[in-house]
Amino acid sequence: MSRIIRRIVRIAAVATVLAVPLAGVRAEEAKPARAAPVIGAAVSSFELANGMRVVVIPDRRAPVVTHMVWYRVGAADEPAGRSGIAHYLEHLMFKGTPAHPGGEFSKIVSKLGGQENAFTSSDYTAYYQRVAKEHLGLMMELEADRMQNLALDPATAAPELKVVLEERSMRTDNDPSAKLGEAVDAALHPNHPYRIPVIGWRSEIEKLTVKDAIAFYDRFYTPNNAILIVAGDVDEATVRPLAEATYGKVARRAEPGERMRPQDPDSVVTRAIALADERVTQPSWRRVWQVPSSRTAAAGESEALDLVTDILGGGATSRLYRELVVDKQLVAQTGAYYQSTALDQGKLVVYAVPRDGVALADVAKAVDEVIARFTREGPSAEEVAHATNKVLAEAIRSQDNQATLARIFGEGLAIGQTISEIQTWPARIRATAPETVKAAAATWLTPERAVTAELRTAPPSGKPLPKLSFPMGGPGAGGAIR
Amino acid sequence: MSRIIRRIVRIAAVATVLAVPLAGVRAEEAKPARAAPVIGAAVSSFELANGMRVVVIPDRRAPVVTHMVWYRVGAADEPAGRSGIAHYLEHLMFKGTPAHPGGEFSKIVSKLGGQENAFTSSDYTAYYQRVAKEHLGLMMELEADRMQNLALDPATAAPELKVVLEERSMRTDNDPSAKLGEAVDAALHPNHPYRIPVIGWRSEIEKLTVKDAIAFYDRFYTPNNAILIVAGDVDEATVRPLAEATYGKVARRAEPGERMRPQDPDSVVTRAIALADERVTQPSWRRVWQVPSSRTAAAGESEALDLVTDILGGGATSRLYRELVVDKQLVAQTGAYYQSTALDQGKLVVYAVPRDGVALADVAKAVDEVIARFTREGPSAEEVAHATNKVLAEAIRSQDNQATLARIFGEGLAIGQTISEIQTWPARIRATAPETVKAAAATWLTPERAVTAELRTAPPSGKPLPKLSFPMGGPGAGGAIR
Repeated sequence: MSRIIRRIVRIAAVATVLAVPLAGVRAEEAKPARAAPVIGAAVSSFELANGMRVVVIPDRRAPVVTHMVWYRVGAADEPAGRSGIAHYLEHLMFKGTPAHPGGEFSKIVSKLGGQENAFTSSDYTAYYQRVAKEHLGLMMELEADRMQNLALDPATAAPELKVVLEERSMRTDNDPSAKLGEAVDAALHPNHPYRIPVIGWRSEIEKLTVKDAIAFYDRFYTPNNAILIVAGDVDEATVRPLAEATYGKVARRAEPGERMRPQDPDSVVTRAIALADERVTQPSWRRVWQVPSSRTAAAGESEALDLVTDILGGGATSRLYRELVVDKQLVAQTGAYYQSTALDQGKLVVYAVPRDGVALADVAKAVDEVIARFTREGPSAEEVAHATNKVLAEAIRSQDNQATLARIFGEGLAIGQTISEIQTWPARIRATAPETVKAAAATWLTPERAVTAELRTAPPSGKPLPKLSFPMGGPGAGGAIR
Repeated sequence: MSRIIRRIVRIAAVATVLAVPLAGVRAEEAKPARAAPVIGAAVSSFELANGMRVVVIPDRRAPVVTHMVWYRVGAADEPAGRSGIAHYLEHLMFKGTPAHPGGEFSKIVSKLGGQENAFTSSDYTAYYQRVAKEHLGLMMELEADRMQNLALDPATAAPELKVVLEERSMRTDNDPSAKLGEAVDAALHPNHPYRIPVIGWRSEIEKLTVKDAIAFYDRFYTPNNAILIVAGDVDEATVRPLAEATYGKVARRAEPGERMRPQDPDSVVTRAIALADERVTQPSWRRVWQVPSSRTAAAGESEALDLVTDILGGGATSRLYRELVVDKQLVAQTGAYYQSTALDQGKLVVYAVPRDGVALADVAKAVDEVIARFTREGPSAEEVAHATNKVLAEAIRSQDNQATLARIFGEGLAIGQTISEIQTWPARIRATAPETVKAAAATWLTPERAVTAELRTAPPSGKPLPKLSFPMGGPGAGGAIR
């Protein structure tokens, strides 16, 4: 489950099926079965002496490179009571080092006409730049520098904490749908830290200190806990000497150990939550099941859930769309997505937005009926073939985007998948039989594994609405969209 | 919130109002107001050089003593992923020391005609014996011995883990109502460790080791983290030399530090859960609000909640009883209780058992109406006077029981109250005005602070029911009912 903070556009192409109905996805369905594509067939990989993994994804179409460093640490690895420290440290990573103080790294990227970004999820934290290929060595030098020499002091850290709190206000506290999402995660995970928001609980963010950030940095930002992905107009022969000269010089300074998080007990209850807020203009309904991720699933199970998701809620040909939007005309929008990329459990989400005047309870009933029939009867062979072709087409399309491919490998490796597992996902999708899809739905889409959530309108309270404030461009926010 | 494992009879007299309607509680109501009683007026207290607190509660009515040692540690202080270690250690404390191996301590108590027990809650762990007064010194010697010399080895610890797992099967896993209770706590506490069951999650209990127990023991079972309560036919002059000769010799071997647990964010959602099980013969409904405890509340607020609870659901004169049982004849049973004794937040519970054929939704609606009217209109002066007299009568009655009084002080001190705060609770109850009671209900009994839970019947699954197994008397269970 890549619970990337919501500003990060979800890469739906491979890890999940698209959540929003897409026109024109039928291109592949009429074609006969053929060999499944391999994702990133030209990928190569090696390890530096200090334990840092390097992955090279050649892409010769343009003279640019995407340079990413992924740390195998995210919000679910935070110490108790210190939620938000992973994301806060991500911000602080832009504060400079003795050799490159202040926002110098960002300024260099900008001056070179490049782009940069960083993101934190429950399972990983990543930093990237996209620049012309001749600047790759410089990016590696600068990134390796902040992997070991980050300057952390209260004078720069304290204002950045305010930026993070503003970010939380804007993205979560002032957004009823996001607040509901937080409550869903909390309800879904009685014990696992996936219940804790990636950005952190406000009361805990407020108490984070530079000392917390240093402890987290020292424990997790060590080269043996990092993965370098270089995608673009390069090959292993180019990348290896650069990597050895930069990251290769960084001392292995901690052993983060195995990532063992407290696990959830099996749920025996059904759970429902609701949020009513005057800022809600459009009620909506969602149901979230805790299901295996690509990493925790038994063989073939995660791929079956990919297909379950697509058949139920992937676009205008899906069962939910046909039944609820077209036939019954109950909802304006509906769909499903599966967050399969997670170190621990994943989640499968079905959502619907009712038409004016339709009660959420009626939407729930109609969704229930669609799912009950699906788990009872299973999909038709045609549905499975169609869904297979669709997700394979998306996998093929993902290869056209250098940054997408870099993220697929970074994300997969960060949660413990092998390169081969990532590459052969299309073949496993293709090998999934209709009865496996049916069994996956019946096993995992049970009432006890789900949390049902309603977002409701509410009459105005008479109190003025909290002011929305935007940290972008403010002091300390830097140039990065992070 | 003293989430004592359920085998421990809740001392409802003072800390809460009784959960079950009681006949004959009206004795005090007609009397005019008088000075509020002081709980344990003769209590004295001192501290040993190693930081252990000693409290003496003279009670000369019989030549017996109640000897208790309370540790300021409970399940909410456990390391992440090690749930159940506090309770497991409680079991292991009966496994002996080099000087008194095996079950020798328990055998001595039994031979002397005494009783013993131990209990673990989220906030504390306590051990007690009740013996003839001449054996007090021996009890202190034995308890001080196991405070520092506990013999912990895999040969005795491993079978005891099986006993704990059997206890969990019997008390929780095979009891739908207890399972629902676990889910309520999990839903009520998105972040605070009160969400974790005192006995632990099964998957985590299974992995507990002797090493975990030793680490927990070494960190928390130090005299400066302990409170000795001696109630009975003794005074400070008798107890002091005995305490100095026994507990006084135990080295202060750790500094457990301040008890800071991760706190819950304010809830913005309403939450409902349901459990349907074929073993349920009688459906029931409950709603649990997160409210301040006697320790976290603003001045007067916890006492106001004591009165809210009694007026709403304390016995046959309460609003819920009159309206739901007598007038509307919807339910067979209803009541309320307030778990006020907690280091962090407390909880207030309203429950109801419908009559045959009455839907749980109708029960919920009727309860909602009672509470809505109460928070809107507040209580009458008569209701407050009646409830005040009732809880004060219970406080007076509690003084008749040596063990009850010992527990009141042990529990209060273990969560950080002072002796004076415990003693003057009746006076604070007496000083609570009707408008304060109304304000407390309006502030705290809001939909967003609550979790609503339904226990439902279900048709037989056709699968055989899990076997109930009783560890009592089995190997390793010892003689103690613990």
